[in-house]
Parts: sequence; structure tokens; C-alpha cells
Amino acid sequence: MRAEAFQNILSDLNGTSADIEASAVISSDGLMMAAMLPSNVDEDRVGAMSAAMLSLGDRTARELSRGSLEQVLIKGERGYVLMVQAGGDAVLTVMAKPSAKLGLVFLDVRRAADALAKILN
Amino acid sequence: MRAEAFQNILSDLNGTSADIEASAVISSDGLMMAAMLPSNVDEDRVGAMSAAMLSLGDRTARELSRGSLEQVLIKGERGYVLMVQAGGDAVLTVMAKPSAKLGLVFLDVRRAADALAKILN
Repeated sequence: MRAEAFQNILSDLNGTSADIEASAVISSDGLMMAAMLPSNVDEDRVGAMSAAMLSLGDRTARELSRGSLEQVLIKGERGYVLMVQAGGDAVLTVMAKPSAKLGLVFLDVRRAADALAKILN
Repeated sequence: MRAEAFQNILSDLNGTSADIEASAVISSDGLMMAAMLPSNVDEDRVGAMSAAMLSLGDRTARELSRGSLEQVLIKGERGYVLMVQAGGDAVLTVMAKPSAKLGLVFLDVRRAADALAKILN
């Protein structure tokens, strides 16, 4: 089952580090494909904001000669949002604590995105 | 002269690392305040994309309980765009090579943004 495989990858990802608070797989048009979110985080809101950020991030990368978009990182005073392309049709969005070790988070999220892309292709 | 002080900070920043290709200070409404850009990069384009990304980044950070926005990082296959708040009214936008050492870039850009914020306040 694809949905189950998605959930397993997200569950593994959230389990690799206490720094990762939530994760979700979202289609390019902003619809939720799988999610491991705390109860206070709204699925639709994560989907909508991820799709909007990716669309503008891709346009920014192209307009400023950075090539096609690979990832977007947002840092707020209360933590990070990281969005990584998982193949051509989906994005993996992860929320992490403000104290997160970014190098480790990048590595774990990149691996999870590659695993998701394999299932989606 | 404020404009000269801005140019000096950007010049120092671009000089700290060969990884940094371009930098600019932009007002919250997307207007250029100072820039050290290569001739193939359009000032208005950098201003417009920076203002749009920051506005959406701030909304995303707030909607996903990350607090107020501190920075946005975009990674494309041909390099990075990093946008950091420089006080409340301006943003420092930096373009870096794909091979850039992100830890160093973050440090240098944060310092330059703090120096800019002091002049602006």
C-alpha cells in the first residue's frame, strides 16, 4: 500500500530526531498525500502554505539564475519549516524546533524525500 | 553618508567569501536601497522577488506557529538565495554558489544584517 509506505517514511523521519516536530507529503497542487502532524497543526494550512511557498520559491530561483528549485527553508523565531522536492510531483514539508541541528535535519529530510520519490515514480 | 555605509557593508560581505556572488539591501516594499550585483542580475527583479518571498515567508512562519520570520533560504540546482531581516524595515538578500559553505554564509550574512540594522535604526 502506497499510503502505508508514506506513513512509514514520515514516522521514521519524525523518529530519527527529537528536533523534527511534524512532517507531511503534499502534491504539487497543495493537496495532502500523507501527514504526521501534531493535533494543533491544521493539514489544509500546511498544504496550502507549502504549495504557495514552493511555487514562489521556484519562480525566485529561476528569476535569479539559481536553476530549478530543490528546497526552501524558513526560519522563524520559534522554529524552522523545510520544504524539499520529493520527485517531480510532490514535496516533503517538515517542521523543526528552533534549536534543531540543521545539518542533520537536511540529511534526514533529503533521505526521506528520496525514499518518497522512489515510491511516487 | 548612509548610502556609502550600506555599500561598504555589502562590499565587505561580498569580499569575505568567494561563495557570495551578489548582495542587496531592499526595503520591506521591495525597493532597492543598495546593491552589489553582477551586471547580468536585474536590480528590480531581485527587489520584487525578495519582497514577495519575505511576505509569503512571514505568513507561512506565522500560520505554522514558527513565530515571526527571521530568514528564508532558497536552494536551486545552480545556487542559493538567502534573505535575512535587517531590522524591521529592510531585508538583506544574498546569492551564493551551489558549493557554498552554508554555515559560514549564515554567519557572515547575519553579521552584515546586524550592521545594516544599526544604521537603519
